[in-house]
Amino acid sequence: MSDETEVLAPEAEHEEDAYTLERKAVAAILYAVDINDREKLIELMEPLHPADIADMLEQINAFDRMRLIKLYGREFDGEILTELDESIREEVINLLSPEVLAEAVRELDSDDVVDLIEDLEQTQQDAILEVLEDSDRVAVQQSMTYPEYSAGRLMQREVVMAPEHWNVGEAIDYLRNTDELPDHFYHIVLVDPRLRPVGNVALGKLMAARREVMLSSILEETFHVIPVTRYDGDVAYAFNQYHLISAPVVDESERLVGVITIDDAMSVLDEEHEEDILRLAGVGESSLSDSVFETTKQRFPWLAVNLVTAVMASMVIAQFEVAIAQLVALAVLMPIVASMGGNAGTQALTVAVRALATKDLTGSNVWRVIRREVAVGLVNGLAFAVIMGLVGLFWFGSVQLGYVIASAMVINLVVAGLAGIGIPILMERAGVDPALASGAFVTTVTDVVGFFAFLGLAVLVLL
Amino acid sequence: MSDETEVLAPEAEHEEDAYTLERKAVAAILYAVDINDREKLIELMEPLHPADIADMLEQINAFDRMRLIKLYGREFDGEILTELDESIREEVINLLSPEVLAEAVRELDSDDVVDLIEDLEQTQQDAILEVLEDSDRVAVQQSMTYPEYSAGRLMQREVVMAPEHWNVGEAIDYLRNTDELPDHFYHIVLVDPRLRPVGNVALGKLMAARREVMLSSILEETFHVIPVTRYDGDVAYAFNQYHLISAPVVDESERLVGVITIDDAMSVLDEEHEEDILRLAGVGESSLSDSVFETTKQRFPWLAVNLVTAVMASMVIAQFEVAIAQLVALAVLMPIVASMGGNAGTQALTVAVRALATKDLTGSNVWRVIRREVAVGLVNGLAFAVIMGLVGLFWFGSVQLGYVIASAMVINLVVAGLAGIGIPILMERAGVDPALASGAFVTTVTDVVGFFAFLGLAVLVLL
Repeated sequence: MSDETEVLAPEAEHEEDAYTLERKAVAAILYAVDINDREKLIELMEPLHPADIADMLEQINAFDRMRLIKLYGREFDGEILTELDESIREEVINLLSPEVLAEAVRELDSDDVVDLIEDLEQTQQDAILEVLEDSDRVAVQQSMTYPEYSAGRLMQREVVMAPEHWNVGEAIDYLRNTDELPDHFYHIVLVDPRLRPVGNVALGKLMAARREVMLSSILEETFHVIPVTRYDGDVAYAFNQYHLISAPVVDESERLVGVITIDDAMSVLDEEHEEDILRLAGVGESSLSDSVFETTKQRFPWLAVNLVTAVMASMVIAQFEVAIAQLVALAVLMPIVASMGGNAGTQALTVAVRALATKDLTGSNVWRVIRREVAVGLVNGLAFAVIMGLVGLFWFGSVQLGYVIASAMVINLVVAGLAGIGIPILMERAGVDPALASGAFVTTVTDVVGFFAFLGLAVLVLL
Repeated sequence: MSDETEVLAPEAEHEEDAYTLERKAVAAILYAVDINDREKLIELMEPLHPADIADMLEQINAFDRMRLIKLYGREFDGEILTELDESIREEVINLLSPEVLAEAVRELDSDDVVDLIEDLEQTQQDAILEVLEDSDRVAVQQSMTYPEYSAGRLMQREVVMAPEHWNVGEAIDYLRNTDELPDHFYHIVLVDPRLRPVGNVALGKLMAARREVMLSSILEETFHVIPVTRYDGDVAYAFNQYHLISAPVVDESERLVGVITIDDAMSVLDEEHEEDILRLAGVGESSLSDSVFETTKQRFPWLAVNLVTAVMASMVIAQFEVAIAQLVALAVLMPIVASMGGNAGTQALTVAVRALATKDLTGSNVWRVIRREVAVGLVNGLAFAVIMGLVGLFWFGSVQLGYVIASAMVINLVVAGLAGIGIPILMERAGVDPALASGAFVTTVTDVVGFFAFLGLAVLVLL
């Protein structure tokens, strides 16, 4: 873009509240609940999207939630349940009367019901399965036989398919004469006589082609078949990587059993990201509507791991008690080396975890990336060595103290780069999610090395 | 799911290499380059998706990249360029001969060309604009007048629209008689006489309806119109929140100017996540193919901020030099309190940053969430106070030292919770991305408070 255009172009609007439920709207709804005005409540809620209603239910407190749902009664839409965070889904289901629940659930597609009930307790699951129509119940139960987090749980079972030898006219006539087409579909899946998918025809292409054109001649260029047991995170990756809109799902004998659409893949991608970012910070699966007890329980384990780490670092320091007693400046400066190492290690670690998640870090470039991280550690280490050496010199007036802290800085930043990239790679190879546990290892390494290098060098050089 | 099913269901397959370019395939390709065998190279590359070719180009080194691209020559597909990471896009474009570049770029849709050139230098931009056909060039230049990161840059300008008074038959006839339909479209946008979008008709619904049915009676339930200047991150949020597949884009006078499809929104969502996770770790925009120099430059600023933080914490320690000289155990134990606070603060911070990004943390629940974080800090603080009190007692045989470290732990974990939630909220209110800078503030607070509380209490109680 030319400089001129750059100046003329306005900023993209990042409206804070573009998609946030307005506080005023929530207040009005809660007021209607307060005065027990059912008509007003329905009038206020009617224009809201189920996803926004779910967000609101998550944000208000449990007492308001209960009163709102009781007052809203039969208006309660099944889609709200699927949009609700798992942390309060059970609570909300328990608030619904059996008739309201039955009506709400019957509106849903079978894949949404699966998504809804898979984390519920057995009694709630049974209650919901019971109110479904027989065909739906069978579909849901069959989906539940696929492993959790698999393509089988994600797919919808209603597929629009056509034999590979059909032409456009035959396909269009078939579509126009079929009573029950799925609510949303974007492709016709072409199958061979054994029901194995051979290609996708986009509806737009179908519309534009002449009737006598063979379906097999207007197939999508990119065609991706997904095994029913494939991990849903890998499915989301494929959709993102290859810009898929829908993809057929096949069983072990490669027969078509369902189809996954991009909106489901997008939700999975979003959840995967949430998991990565929270795991990196040492927070388990969490939600803003979790209780204090729940939240404490999620965060305790990581803090406990960190305590062990911190005590190990302290034990390193304890080895140098005599030196510290002789020169208290060591106690003042030692956290700097450890802290810089921890930060540099976390930087390298986060880049590595993200690159592993996006499959950008592979056998082809792993050694080059490791070399780069070590080199970056060295360069940054040297830069901060100079700075800290000068700080040591001017603060404590000792050239030798400056040398010591500078050398320790270089050592720890190189080690930080190596640990930050190496540990997640090793975790991944060992089959452990690198986002889950690498952080503790990396900071243990940088703390121990940081304290040991600084205090050890101090003993050698200064005392 | 019943326990029985749980046992029967196999694990979801998480194949490490499900979508990773196999090392062997890359090796074979590089071998073909080594022996200068163009036919073999084309044979090996032909089945690969442009996204995978781009990944491979990112993973091999610059010398191999150059030789491969030279040998591949005219086969080079324009889509590879759009899939390439920005860090090496310029380099690759410079490697292409003008004819190859021209051919590659002419194949692309105008929104892809925009995406391709917006980060290039002016000379490269001009070179690409020059080879486009006149109509495409005008379209690209017009898109470039919209702000960066806006819906206008993201949208495609080819829209399939129909007047609101048409019926299904008219729409189908129109589609079948139109020569140039976009490659991918999922909805017909219904417009009023002033070209303002009034609804979406899904192609599947159109197919299934009788010819005399009015389009306006089979509109999608969820319909979302996006202003052309809307920030692309907000666009991605709307697609994810409301499960949109495509959405019309309008200018200031609410006239239809383009359409955004979910695959573009998904890419934006993925980029936003990458930004969040890297910013939280203090890494700027980065890529695995960045050089050592680039990478050092990205990471240096955060480490510099951390150095200032660490020096501030050291200055707090320096105030207590006399106490430490009297009781070296203080130097041994003090990093534990600071480190636990830093971790607890990062936990609260990450949850807050994520909740702000997903718009789950709003005016309706902000105070409840703040109260919760403080309570969690208190509970975890008390738990670790007991543990650390005992460690202090048994390690150093001093009950009073145990009291001191326990009290400092409670104080610092409560402060960590408050800082972890409060600082990102304040950043967001001030219009700064909370992922970008909160971390430094939070750890400054927990370091300073941690050292001050522990050493200060020690002076009061022990000396």
